[in-house]
Amino acid sequence: MTDAATNMRLKLPIICFTLEIILIILFGAIVQYDHETDAKQWHSKNHSDYDNDFYYRYPSFQDVHVMIFIGFGFLMTFLQRYGFSSVGFNFLIAAFALQWATLMQGFFHGLHGGKIHIGVESMINADFCTGSVLISFGAVLGKTSPVQLLVMAMFEVTLFAVNEFILLSLLGTKDAGGSMTIHTFGAYFGLMVTRILYRPNLDKSKDKNSSVYHSDLFAMIGTIYLWMFWPSFNSAITAHGDDQHRTAMNTYYSLAACTLATYGMSALTAHDGKLDMVHIQNAALAGGVAAGTAGEMMLTPCGSMIVGFLAGIISVLGFKYLSTILEEKLKIQDTCGVHNLHGMPGVLGAIVGAVTAAVATADIYGEGMADVFPKVASGEVDASYQGGIQAISLAVTLGIALLGGLIVGFILKLPIFGAPPDTICFEDSIYWEVPGEEAPHDGQLTAVNTEETEKLSS
Amino acid sequence: MTDAATNMRLKLPIICFTLEIILIILFGAIVQYDHETDAKQWHSKNHSDYDNDFYYRYPSFQDVHVMIFIGFGFLMTFLQRYGFSSVGFNFLIAAFALQWATLMQGFFHGLHGGKIHIGVESMINADFCTGSVLISFGAVLGKTSPVQLLVMAMFEVTLFAVNEFILLSLLGTKDAGGSMTIHTFGAYFGLMVTRILYRPNLDKSKDKNSSVYHSDLFAMIGTIYLWMFWPSFNSAITAHGDDQHRTAMNTYYSLAACTLATYGMSALTAHDGKLDMVHIQNAALAGGVAAGTAGEMMLTPCGSMIVGFLAGIISVLGFKYLSTILEEKLKIQDTCGVHNLHGMPGVLGAIVGAVTAAVATADIYGEGMADVFPKVASGEVDASYQGGIQAISLAVTLGIALLGGLIVGFILKLPIFGAPPDTICFEDSIYWEVPGEEAPHDGQLTAVNTEETEKLSS
Amino acid sequence: MTDAATNMRLKLPIICFTLEIILIILFGAIVQYDHETDAKQWHSKNHSDYDNDFYYRYPSFQDVHVMIFIGFGFLMTFLQRYGFSSVGFNFLIAAFALQWATLMQGFFHGLHGGKIHIGVESMINADFCTGSVLISFGAVLGKTSPVQLLVMAMFEVTLFAVNEFILLSLLGTKDAGGSMTIHTFGAYFGLMVTRILYRPNLDKSKDKNSSVYHSDLFAMIGTIYLWMFWPSFNSAITAHGDDQHRTAMNTYYSLAACTLATYGMSALTAHDGKLDMVHIQNAALAGGVAAGTAGEMMLTPCGSMIVGFLAGIISVLGFKYLSTILEEKLKIQDTCGVHNLHGMPGVLGAIVGAVTAAVATADIYGEGMADVFPKVASGEVDASYQGGIQAISLAVTLGIALLGGLIVGFILKLPIFGAPPDTICFEDSIYWEVPGEEAPHDGQLTAVNTEETEKLSS
Repeated sequence: MTDAATNMRLKLPIICFTLEIILIILFGAIVQYDHETDAKQWHSKNHSDYDNDFYYRYPSFQDVHVMIFIGFGFLMTFLQRYGFSSVGFNFLIAAFALQWATLMQGFFHGLHGGKIHIGVESMINADFCTGSVLISFGAVLGKTSPVQLLVMAMFEVTLFAVNEFILLSLLGTKDAGGSMTIHTFGAYFGLMVTRILYRPNLDKSKDKNSSVYHSDLFAMIGTIYLWMFWPSFNSAITAHGDDQHRTAMNTYYSLAACTLATYGMSALTAHDGKLDMVHIQNAALAGGVAAGTAGEMMLTPCGSMIVGFLAGIISVLGFKYLSTILEEKLKIQDTCGVHNLHGMPGVLGAIVGAVTAAVATADIYGEGMADVFPKVASGEVDASYQGGIQAISLAVTLGIALLGGLIVGFILKLPIFGAPPDTICFEDSIYWEVPGEEAPHDGQLTAVNTEETEKLSS
Repeated sequence: MTDAATNMRLKLPIICFTLEIILIILFGAIVQYDHETDAKQWHSKNHSDYDNDFYYRYPSFQDVHVMIFIGFGFLMTFLQRYGFSSVGFNFLIAAFALQWATLMQGFFHGLHGGKIHIGVESMINADFCTGSVLISFGAVLGKTSPVQLLVMAMFEVTLFAVNEFILLSLLGTKDAGGSMTIHTFGAYFGLMVTRILYRPNLDKSKDKNSSVYHSDLFAMIGTIYLWMFWPSFNSAITAHGDDQHRTAMNTYYSLAACTLATYGMSALTAHDGKLDMVHIQNAALAGGVAAGTAGEMMLTPCGSMIVGFLAGIISVLGFKYLSTILEEKLKIQDTCGVHNLHGMPGVLGAIVGAVTAAVATADIYGEGMADVFPKVASGEVDASYQGGIQAISLAVTLGIALLGGLIVGFILKLPIFGAPPDTICFEDSIYWEVPGEEAPHDGQLTAVNTEETEKLSS
Repeated sequence: MTDAATNMRLKLPIICFTLEIILIILFGAIVQYDHETDAKQWHSKNHSDYDNDFYYRYPSFQDVHVMIFIGFGFLMTFLQRYGFSSVGFNFLIAAFALQWATLMQGFFHGLHGGKIHIGVESMINADFCTGSVLISFGAVLGKTSPVQLLVMAMFEVTLFAVNEFILLSLLGTKDAGGSMTIHTFGAYFGLMVTRILYRPNLDKSKDKNSSVYHSDLFAMIGTIYLWMFWPSFNSAITAHGDDQHRTAMNTYYSLAACTLATYGMSALTAHDGKLDMVHIQNAALAGGVAAGTAGEMMLTPCGSMIVGFLAGIISVLGFKYLSTILEEKLKIQDTCGVHNLHGMPGVLGAIVGAVTAAVATADIYGEGMADVFPKVASGEVDASYQGGIQAISLAVTLGIALLGGLIVGFILKLPIFGAPPDTICFEDSIYWEVPGEEAPHDGQLTAVNTEETEKLSS
C-alpha cells in the first residue's frame, strides 16, 4: 500500500495514543475503586470476604467477556480474506470502547461525589456497551478503516450511555439483557451508518465478500461461544437469586428452540434443501437477542421457547429475503446481516418484554416483584403502565440510534479517516502485513503475495 | 443435489418444526420453574439471595455446556470435508436433545404433583444426556442425515432416561460423572446403531474418511476443551462441598496421567515412532471417562492417576489394533472410535467405581459417607453390596444400550430419512451449501465447486 | 523418518512411562487430600458445604487452565507447519509439569507432617508453575524434541519451586500474578536455554519459521483467550474479597490500555503503516504480565492503564528492534519472542510492584493492609523495606533463571534426546504423522506428503 489515504502509519498511532492518554488522564481525575474493590473501604465494614460481589458476578463477567472478544471477533471471520481485520479490529475497538464506556456510563449513572466508582458490575456494563459497538461494526464490516471504527466507537458509546440513561434511569425501563439498549440500538445505529457510507461500486469487491470453507469453520467458533454464553449475558446484571437463575434458564430454552427453527427454515428456504452456513451462524442466535428484555421476567420456559422459535424464523426470513431488498431499495449494505440477527429480533424482544411486563401480577411474582418491577411492587405504577414504558423505550431507542447513526455516518465520511477504496474492501492486506497461503507439504512455499491487490488499489 | 432421497427441503423442516411444536406444547403443559427460579416461591422463604444454587452449580454448568457444543462439536471436525456437519449437526441434535431430555428426565425423576420442576441442576442433567447422544453421533459420523440423527436422539434420550432411572433411582447406583450412564451407554448404543447401519461399500467414500492438516487443528480445539473442563463435568452434580472439590481434583490428575500414557503409547505403537493425532485427540481424554464413577469417591490422587494411566494405554491400543478388528470381523464402522474413547474406558470406570465402592469404610469417609454412599451410611446396605450394585448397573447399562441400539438402528434404516449414498459419505456438500476453498492471495478465486461430488451421488 | 536419533519410538515411551510411574509412586507415598477435599476431615468440622474454597477458587482455576492449554497452546500455532507440535507438545509438557509441580511446590511449602496436602489452590499453583515452563517452551519452539522438553520441564519446575520458595516464603515477596516468579523466571530461563542450544545453521529451516494466513488466525485464538482470562490469572491466588476483585479489575484496564498502545506502535514502526500480526498476538498481552505483581496492590485503575500502556510500547519495540539484535549479537534465537512478551514486561512488572509497595500507606490500605502486605501491617517491616525486598526478589529471580537455564541448556545438548537437525526445525513431520493439505472440492485428494522433508533430514 503506497496509497497515502489508507496508510495508517501516522493516523492510527495518533488516534490510539491520543485516545489512550485522554482516557488515562480522565481515569486519573475521576475514577476510583468502589467499596468492593478498595482495600480500605471494604475492610472498614463488617462482612465476610466471601460476601464480595466478585464471587456472584465475576463468572458471568468472564462469560460476557468471551462473547465480546471471541464471540463477536470470530463470528465475523467468515469472510475469506478478512480474518485478521475481523478479530483484530474487533479486539482494538473493544479494548477502547470498554474504557470509554466506563467513563460514559459512570458519568450518567455511577457518580458519587463527582467520582466514578467502579467494580465488576461496571466492567460488565462496559462490556455490554462494547457489544453494541461491535454489532454496528458488523454492519460496516470490510468497508471501514480502523480509524473510522475508533471514531465510530467513541460516538456510539456516548450515545449508548445517553440512551441507556434515559431508559433505565429516567423511564424505569427493564432491559437486563439489552434487547433494546444493546441489540436494537447497535443494529439500527450501524445500519444508518452503513446507509450513509453507501458505496454504489461495492460490487468491485464482491469476489471477496463471501466465505471459504475454513473461514466458515472459524466463524462457527464465534457462533457457538455466543450461543453457549448468552444465558450468562442476559443474566449478568439482573438481581441476585432467582432472577439471575431464571434469566439464564429462559435464555437457554429460547436459544434451543431458536436453533431448531433456524435449521428447519434454512432447509425450507433453499431451492435444493441444503443448509446455509449464514443462517446457522447467525439466526440460531436470535433467540438470545429476543429473550434480552423478558428473560428476567416470569416468561416461563414454554414462553421462552415460543419467543426463540419465532426469532429463528424471522431471522432466517430476513437473511433470505429482506437483506437483498434493504441493499437494493434502501441502499443499506449490511455485511453481517445485523438487521436479521440483532435488529428484528431486538425489536421482537422489546415487544415481548412490553407485553410480559404489562401482564405481570402479584399472584405470579409474589415478593419477587420488587426485584423485577420495583415501581410496580411499590405501587408507584401499575403493570400495564410499565408495559407502556417498555414500548416507549423501544421508540426512544430507535430514534436515538437512527439519528445518531445519521450524524456519525456523515462524520465518518471525512476522507482523512482512510476508508478503503471500493476495489479493495473485505481485504486484510490493505491494513495488515499478510503472509502467504498454506505451504504445500513438499516444503515449497507458495510465494503468492499481496502485490496484485496493491496494484488494484493504487 | 437433485437426488430426492437426500433432499432435506421438506424432511428437515417437517421434523424440526414438529418436534419443536410438540416440545413447546409439552413444556407449556407440564414444565414449571422450580423453587429456585420461581419469583414467588423463592421469595416466600427466608434465605439470602446468595444461597441460590445458581452460584454453586452454574459455573460447572457452563463448563459442561462448552464441552457439549465446542468440545464434541469440534472434536469431530477432524474429517477433511465434514466440518460443517460435525459442528452443525452436533449443534442441531444437542439443541433438540437438551429440551427433550428435560422432559424425559423430569418425567422419570423430577415430577412434583404432576409437574416437572426445572433449574440449573436439570439443565446440567439435560446436557449430560445430550452428551450421551453426541457420543453415539461419533460412531455414525459421516454416514447419517440430520433427520436420522434427530430420530436417533429422540429415542436415545428416552432410553437414557430409563436407564438412568433404573440405576440412580431404583438401584441406588453412584455415577456422578456418568462412566456408565453417559459414556458406556452412549458408546454401545452408537456402536450397535452403526452395526445395524453397516455399509459394505463404504470404501467408496474412504478418500474423504481422513483428516487434513487444518482439520486436525480444529479438532484439537475440541479435544483441549473436553480435557480442560472434564473436572467440571464429573463434579457438576455431586454433593456440594468436599465432594465437588474432590471429584474435580481426582479427574484433573487422572487426565494428566492419561495424557502421558497416551503420548508414550502413540509413539511406541507407531512403526517409525511418530505421534498419531487420532490418539492425542481421543485417548488423552479417556482418563476423564474412566474417573466418571469413582471420581467422587475417596479414590486418592494416586489412585486417580493409576486409573487415568490405564485408560490412556487401553484407549491407544484400541485405536491401533481393535478398531480394524471391529470393522472387519464385527462389521462395526466406528467413525470416531467411540469404542476406544468412551466404550472401554467407560467400562473401566464402572469397574473402578464398583471396586472403590466395595472397599469404602467409615474410617476413610467419616461423616462424609452420607454424601457419597447414603445407603451405606444409613446402614441400609454394606459397602460390598454397594459394589455389587455398581457392577450390576454396568450390565444393565450394556443391555439397555445394545438392545436399544438394535431397535433404533432398524428404525433408522427407513429410506425416508434420507441417508447419504455410500459414494458420498463424510461429505458436507450433500446437506450444506459449501463455498470454494481458500482463495490465493492474488485475488483470483479458486472456482472449485461441488459439481463433481454431486455427479457422483446422482 | 528413518533417522535413528530423532526416532521417538523408544525414547518418548521410556521417558513418559518412567516419569509417570515415578509420579504415581511419589503421589502414593506422600500426597493426600487437604481438609477441603477429604471426606472425613471436611465433615469433621462445623461449617456449611458452601464455605468450601472450591466455590471461591475453582472458576479462577478453570480460567487459568484455559490459558495454559488453549492460550499458550494456540498462541504458538502461528508457525505454518508446527501446529501439531505447538498444541501437542504444549499439552504433553503441561500435563507432566502440573503433576511434578504439585510435588515440588508441595515439598517446599505444603508439607504437613511429611505429607503434601492438595486442593484447588495447589492446582492453581501447579498450573502457574506450568505456565512458566510453557514460556520457556516458546523460546525454544521448533528446535527441540518432546524428550528434551520433558527433561527441561522436570528441571525447570524444580528450580521454579526453589525460586518461589525463596521469594514467597523466605523473603516475604508479594507476586500474586507472577511477574517475577512466572514471567521473568520462565522467559530468562528459556532465553538462556536457547542461547546454549544456539544453532548457527538455523537459517536452513528459515522458510518454515514464519506464519501462513490460517496459522495466524489459530494463533489469535490463543492470544484472545490469554487476554480475556488474564484478570483471572493475576487474581487467582490473592486474598479473598476486595483483593481478588481489585486485582482482576486492575489487570482488565492494564490490558485494555496495552492493546491501544500495541496497535499504535505496530502501525508506527511499520514502513507502510500496516499492522503486524506478531505484535498483535503478543505485545497486546504485555499489560497482563506487567500487572502481575502490583495488580493486587492499590495501583488504581489509572495506574494500571499507565503500566499497560508502557508495557505495550516496550513490547512492540522489542519485537521490532531488539529481537534481531539478540539473535545477531547474543546468539539468542527466541522463536516466539518471549523476551518481548514475558521478559521485559515481567521486569517492568517487578519494578512497578516494588515502587507500589514502597509507597503503600495505612491511609490508603486501611485494615486491608493485612491482606496485601502482612508484614507491613504487623509492623514487622516498613513499606520502603517491602519495596526493597521486591527489588531484591527480581535480582534473585534473574539469577536463578539464568544460572538454571545455563545448566539445563547443557544437559539438553546430549544427543540422546533426539533434537531435530537444523534442516528440519519448525516442522511437524519429524515427530508427527502428518496428513496431506486441503483437498480441493472436486474430490481429488492433494497427495502431497512428507517425503521431501524426510529426504532433507535423512
